[in-house]
Amino acid sequence: LLVASPRPYSLALESPRQGRLVEGRLVYRQTFVIRSYEVGVDKTASIETLMNHFQEVALNHVWMSGLAGDGFGATHAMIRHRLIWVVSRVHVQVERYASWGDAIEIDTWVDASGKNGMRRDWLMRDYKSGQILARATSTWVVMNQTTRRLSKMPDDVREEITPFYLQRRAIVRNVSHKITKVDGATQFARSGLTPRHGDLDMNQHVNNVKYIGWMLESVPLSIVQDHEVSSLTLE
Amino acid sequence: LLVASPRPYSLALESPRQGRLVEGRLVYRQTFVIRSYEVGVDKTASIETLMNHFQEVALNHVWMSGLAGDGFGATHAMIRHRLIWVVSRVHVQVERYASWGDAIEIDTWVDASGKNGMRRDWLMRDYKSGQILARATSTWVVMNQTTRRLSKMPDDVREEITPFYLQRRAIVRNVSHKITKVDGATQFARSGLTPRHGDLDMNQHVNNVKYIGWMLESVPLSIVQDHEVSSLTLE
Repeated sequence: LLVASPRPYSLALESPRQGRLVEGRLVYRQTFVIRSYEVGVDKTASIETLMNHFQEVALNHVWMSGLAGDGFGATHAMIRHRLIWVVSRVHVQVERYASWGDAIEIDTWVDASGKNGMRRDWLMRDYKSGQILARATSTWVVMNQTTRRLSKMPDDVREEITPFYLQRRAIVRNVSHKITKVDGATQFARSGLTPRHGDLDMNQHVNNVKYIGWMLESVPLSIVQDHEVSSLTLE
Repeated sequence: LLVASPRPYSLALESPRQGRLVEGRLVYRQTFVIRSYEVGVDKTASIETLMNHFQEVALNHVWMSGLAGDGFGATHAMIRHRLIWVVSRVHVQVERYASWGDAIEIDTWVDASGKNGMRRDWLMRDYKSGQILARATSTWVVMNQTTRRLSKMPDDVREEITPFYLQRRAIVRNVSHKITKVDGATQFARSGLTPRHGDLDMNQHVNNVKYIGWMLESVPLSIVQDHEVSSLTLE
């Protein structure tokens, strides 16, 4: 579970290049140029880079929408209820990985997900050609900060976020396959990976991006060398 | 040793926000906004983030100066001699770490270092206040790509890069203390840190930034929690 934690940052408005609200202010759009340290041995952006960028635009979106009631992305009503966001599922489909120096543009928006959840989608395009590079969707629920248990979404929280909902799907064909329990695959298990202090984010968590990196370490080198992740589901 | 490996990227000119040459085109200047995934538990940019940004501007500088003769930052004459850059020493002094959302501005430039070396300096400022956040200097030498041995700098290489030299020091007071051999400090050693596939950069190296992260893992948590790195020398 990733706990969302945006923080208002005063320079975003002065630095429009950091992103802007478009399409009736319901879509947050930000451009990135892939940096030298964001690529792997094949000189393309790693899946971790992609997930980091998704996290970044999600946090910036919440802040720029004026929804952020505190430093940690909860809305004003959520704070009254002592609720925080947690992501329960992420599904990513990658068409092509951007290369070092490429400019990419990411759109993100939110919609309802059942009665108690929120869906956040992402669409990543090549900035120059407009070609779609990746699509992703995620489901968010609210958790009580004190009891650490999932909670129903209170009506006043729903009223706060509903105006920001956009009925659009980054992934049209619903991929609903369940992740089955892994049995007998110990051949490819990679153990001994322990969190380093430097792996902790500002919430003192090892967030989902680090887990993806760890999971990829279990893939045999012979596979890593001539394959790439084309889709990924985290639960 | 970090092997420099810039690559021309076509979008930089169209995206001036990625950086520009200033002060007689001898200083490369780029602005960064500290992202959510670039900060640690204290919500400030980690020393790794700072070093990553230094690497990024160095590579962009070489490319934007038109010096880059291939995809790996060697100049045209260096390619003829089969030489590549390696960094032999980096010294960083941090005044203050930027926080999540802060905009920072980094200047970098090069100068001669003895007869066979090049010095690269960096100056990091808070974009809004202009306050200096960090200063750094580094020494680069050339290595024969085939023999992997250090080489004298050929005259034609020196002639190529000399026009870009700027006699200015980011760190005025020369810090020339030698790094002494560590003895009996095994109390704070951290072993078992092995490179992960995801630690490799596009040169298939574990670069100096990863080493810094590993070294910091040896610092006891009680120290990490209420101290920060104020200066650092890598040899």
